[in-house]
Amino acid sequence: VRLGVDIGGTKTDVVLVRDDVVIARHRAPSGFGEEDVIRSATAAVGAVLAHAGIGFDDVRSIGIGVPGGVVDGVVTYALNLGLERLDLAGALEEAWGLRPVVDNDVNVAALGAWTHLGRTDDSLAYLNLGTGLAAGLILGGRLWRGANGTAGELGHISVDPKGPADADGLPGALETYASGSGITRQWGVQGAVARDVFDAADRGDPTAIAIREGLYFGVASAVRALVLMLDVQRVIIGGGLAAHSAEILLGTARQFAEWGSRSAFLESLALQERLLVLDADAPVAALGAADLGAGDVSRG
Amino acid sequence: VRLGVDIGGTKTDVVLVRDDVVIARHRAPSGFGEEDVIRSATAAVGAVLAHAGIGFDDVRSIGIGVPGGVVDGVVTYALNLGLERLDLAGALEEAWGLRPVVDNDVNVAALGAWTHLGRTDDSLAYLNLGTGLAAGLILGGRLWRGANGTAGELGHISVDPKGPADADGLPGALETYASGSGITRQWGVQGAVARDVFDAADRGDPTAIAIREGLYFGVASAVRALVLMLDVQRVIIGGGLAAHSAEILLGTARQFAEWGSRSAFLESLALQERLLVLDADAPVAALGAADLGAGDVSRG
Repeated sequence: VRLGVDIGGTKTDVVLVRDDVVIARHRAPSGFGEEDVIRSATAAVGAVLAHAGIGFDDVRSIGIGVPGGVVDGVVTYALNLGLERLDLAGALEEAWGLRPVVDNDVNVAALGAWTHLGRTDDSLAYLNLGTGLAAGLILGGRLWRGANGTAGELGHISVDPKGPADADGLPGALETYASGSGITRQWGVQGAVARDVFDAADRGDPTAIAIREGLYFGVASAVRALVLMLDVQRVIIGGGLAAHSAEILLGTARQFAEWGSRSAFLESLALQERLLVLDADAPVAALGAADLGAGDVSRG
Repeated sequence: VRLGVDIGGTKTDVVLVRDDVVIARHRAPSGFGEEDVIRSATAAVGAVLAHAGIGFDDVRSIGIGVPGGVVDGVVTYALNLGLERLDLAGALEEAWGLRPVVDNDVNVAALGAWTHLGRTDDSLAYLNLGTGLAAGLILGGRLWRGANGTAGELGHISVDPKGPADADGLPGALETYASGSGITRQWGVQGAVARDVFDAADRGDPTAIAIREGLYFGVASAVRALVLMLDVQRVIIGGGLAAHSAEILLGTARQFAEWGSRSAFLESLALQERLLVLDADAPVAALGAADLGAGDVSRG
């Protein structure tokens, strides 16, 4: 059996895979800080194995997805998990006696989505609308990580020099429009979450409505940039904001129609038809992590 | 020997390559319209062979770069050449008895730049600042064309919803800021070329100065988008506007410094250090075409 572990900012999701079928799954809150992250991941792995009645000795491989940068199993700047720098592969190898393969959670989700869709697409982008905004890229059936492992950081592309400010004060970043942190920063109410902004928009609050319109503009702009730059066959929308996918898809359709009505070239790209939202409950990232650990995916 | 032919909007550039060395080169004006394009390409090929004292029978392969979309040797919308749809590979095979491999000129230039730099870079983008703006992408040592062959069309990414209009009236497209057609459209003087705008800026014309500043902003924004999205090791600036590369590099350095002073993440990307301008006289596209024809490059 193979283990796939997705250590998210809030939840740790573990799947046990045998012959490409998920035979057990366990979800639990993620820890915060080095010790707690390791403890919660270990506990979740123990729980899924106990649930399946399988011993650790039968595990062939472990793959892990985490937020932040990952090079050779070392995680940096996973700030949602309270990690500045942690040799996660090393620490878990010591604890488990088996070295896991670790990668960025968005890359892992892209792999998982690709597997979930049968690996028939030559290219796809997994656009993660989570706390931040980033994409995992499958190009030519391989994960593209870039020269330094920072490919897919399109959240920092600016689409408006007069747009709302990001955490650094830079205007118009895609992440400001279309991520949980960006939406709540624009809203400015202490302790609020994106849901609160959408509720306020539903009640007719004009500021909230403008932020919600900005979300549609941001997602549409991200998809436009991904397809123009890479001509990926599909763009899969995932992350926490995908819970609002019905409204988001209506919003992007409206934006694409406006652009397409003026530009035959943009119209010809069929941006909306490339969009896909996966079932929010599908263990896409954990599944991708299991693939990653097993090494049965071609990687660039 | 191998032939590489770059049919540009104004010039056709032909190189004859033996053992990876250019042994002859010939440049001539490109024709306009189906018959003239074929006639001028055939004449240029004849001239380079005559110059080298080599017969057509000794040519092993021919590769061709052309503007516009290319699928299976058929060129579409190469409007600079007056071509709406032409089976260029078929027509030249009939004329020459040897079927050329045809690809988009920017893709071919990316291949040529990669070869020119010794093929040591794992990834690079060739950012063509020509009549339009587009990029050729080498990712993992392979040309990335996308699902439908339209990858690299970043000229249609918008970076300002209140920016200057493109040919379709859409605001803020990178191509409007940083291409020959975009600069002259902004300037609005019948028959003017980009050089005229720069000259006017040098004389202190405020409109021309603003357009020139927009060029720097557009190139910097294109590089920012390319590196954030793909983390390419290098971005090579080519195309007609590369004749102004000294000013452009000063302008991008200023823009990157402004962004980097606020964002440690953008600063860490070392955008300016990834930039490179090749000698404007290097036969990059023709060289890439020769590679393409020979099939000795891995292609996605």
